[in-house]
Amino acid sequence: MAKKTSGTRTLKKNKLHFNGRIWIDMGKKAFLGYGRIELLEHIQRTGSISKAAAEMKMSYRQAWELIEDMNHTSAEPLVVSQRGGKGGGFALLTPIAREYIKLFKKFNKDFQKFLKSYH
Amino acid sequence: MAKKTSGTRTLKKNKLHFNGRIWIDMGKKAFLGYGRIELLEHIQRTGSISKAAAEMKMSYRQAWELIEDMNHTSAEPLVVSQRGGKGGGFALLTPIAREYIKLFKKFNKDFQKFLKSYH
Repeated sequence: MAKKTSGTRTLKKNKLHFNGRIWIDMGKKAFLGYGRIELLEHIQRTGSISKAAAEMKMSYRQAWELIEDMNHTSAEPLVVSQRGGKGGGFALLTPIAREYIKLFKKFNKDFQKFLKSYH
Repeated sequence: MAKKTSGTRTLKKNKLHFNGRIWIDMGKKAFLGYGRIELLEHIQRTGSISKAAAEMKMSYRQAWELIEDMNHTSAEPLVVSQRGGKGGGFALLTPIAREYIKLFKKFNKDFQKFLKSYH
């Protein structure tokens, strides 16, 4: 005979997955999300927009536009870069970019913890 | 002379908005999100899929497909309906649907609280 349980017995809680995503706007403009943070981290590691773009399977142009958008939204640049030249181009994260990465990662870590609390 | 503050002074925290959205999957299938919950609530209030669809500015067909998808994903139906006939059609939420609405709203309320804690 099947066991009878009460209340929420019919909710298949073991099969439910509580999901979501987060991002940070500045004013009313989209500013930082998972993709942009990943791009910044690739730039930090490679020192190059084109390498970072390649690792993320996006075009140089796409990466460049994301960076331009972040730089303008922030008013203070997140990435300083120079293209081409003898030694090749370079790209560096500014200190504020590293702070934004830290802030976003904390935000996301807390969010993942929140989601897990539902499982 | 401008005041000097330390550390995160350059993060425009007052302008940052911490945003996100949540949803619930069942197994690997999308199951409940803001739109579907809103649809269920309109059905609960109006007793009619076509009225609920109109209030959400979607077609009857769109609403019907969302309901079919939820019913199949859940295995137990969330909405029971009958179309047309003399007295017109009707649509009713099952008890489990009301439990899912409650669960999602609690999840979302806690999530909004989480976002606010970042402001």
